[in-house]
Amino acid sequence: MEPELLFDGMSFRVFRSGEPDCVTVEFTDTITAFGGIKRAEISGKGEINASIASMVAEYIGKNGVESHFIRQLDSRRILCRKVEMIRLEVVVRNIIAGSMARRLGVREGMKPENTIFDLFYKNEDLGSPLINDHYAVALGLVTYGELTRIYEYAGKINGLMSSLLKDVDIELVDFKLEFGRDGSGNIVVADELTPDNARLWDMKSMQKLDRDRFRRDMGKVGEAYRTICGRLRTVLRK
Amino acid sequence: MEPELLFDGMSFRVFRSGEPDCVTVEFTDTITAFGGIKRAEISGKGEINASIASMVAEYIGKNGVESHFIRQLDSRRILCRKVEMIRLEVVVRNIIAGSMARRLGVREGMKPENTIFDLFYKNEDLGSPLINDHYAVALGLVTYGELTRIYEYAGKINGLMSSLLKDVDIELVDFKLEFGRDGSGNIVVADELTPDNARLWDMKSMQKLDRDRFRRDMGKVGEAYRTICGRLRTVLRK
Repeated sequence: MEPELLFDGMSFRVFRSGEPDCVTVEFTDTITAFGGIKRAEISGKGEINASIASMVAEYIGKNGVESHFIRQLDSRRILCRKVEMIRLEVVVRNIIAGSMARRLGVREGMKPENTIFDLFYKNEDLGSPLINDHYAVALGLVTYGELTRIYEYAGKINGLMSSLLKDVDIELVDFKLEFGRDGSGNIVVADELTPDNARLWDMKSMQKLDRDRFRRDMGKVGEAYRTICGRLRTVLRK
Repeated sequence: MEPELLFDGMSFRVFRSGEPDCVTVEFTDTITAFGGIKRAEISGKGEINASIASMVAEYIGKNGVESHFIRQLDSRRILCRKVEMIRLEVVVRNIIAGSMARRLGVREGMKPENTIFDLFYKNEDLGSPLINDHYAVALGLVTYGELTRIYEYAGKINGLMSSLLKDVDIELVDFKLEFGRDGSGNIVVADELTPDNARLWDMKSMQKLDRDRFRRDMGKVGEAYRTICGRLRTVLRK
């Protein structure tokens, strides 16, 4: 019997798991851009992302960040705790790139002294608008107290991963995270850090090693993902 | 000799003043909407706004909010300290109305339990985009410490004015403020609270008594401004 599909995120799919209060997340080879308008298959991407997601989740978990990740099941699938998703996307930016650079009229690559945290209201009908803490609370998505924990985790992951990636000559430009509440109402990271939702630049060549290669038709998408996975492995699977 | 025009905001004009480190703000009869695309003259508006601005500035000043206001000079003009303007618009919202209601997919009139504070980057070329604290700091507009003071003042003005207006059956729906730095680098309110940049609803009839009457071609714009001024006078000029 096929497991029940709970959510199809195109680049990943969430299934009901046989284990109680758990879900299975399967990473696919599908890559999308511009809200799914642009779409392709990148052979092997699912396995690469499952591997990256697992390495990162284990690492941040050891360092005190609560996430939904339990363990890797096979080459494409991870087992996660089932959580109540919060309809927010949290974006952490160390460098201003992409649409945000255009929005602010700054050059792509501007590196502010402070870390930027963005909140987007996850609502496709509205085009997932940029909001702020007060709107998130007013919309009933989250409490101010939960936001404090969310920013604490987001900042901690940024510190851990920026430093780790720097050791393998990769700049963590920005990344997107989502959060959920576990059975006890605790905030947990309910998302994976992969080149699908992070911008990762080679610090020497300044080459993009992430989904922007697909967004901008730069080619060698699979190679870029493989590079990230390989370099992470040298520091996380010693 | 004509005083030197320093800034033309259409609904108000700022002139160099004879007094050192001061400017004169003159309120005009011009009313605009949609970034100046729609424009008209409302006879007497300048005098009404000068009167409202002065009453409000004196009241909040007495209650511990530092502003640029010194005194009313004549029926249309006020004397203000010259300050270095910060390129931010701070919007305080007690009720979600106008374009923000559409942006969030909520009905106009939604009243959240918390107060909403918005930051817009004042940059006409970019359409003055909504940003957040982190962008304001990254763009070099302001420090986190200054933002704390800005929100403190904005919140205090909201509390004072909401309560005062409620006594005369007016709901303070939202309002826009700008801030500056005085000669010592202290944050001061450098803006006027008038029906030009606030939404004010009659609590009984729910009629709009502000610039939305002009934006939406509802008529009786001058009458609405006069109503606000008259009611404020009953509580502020006793």
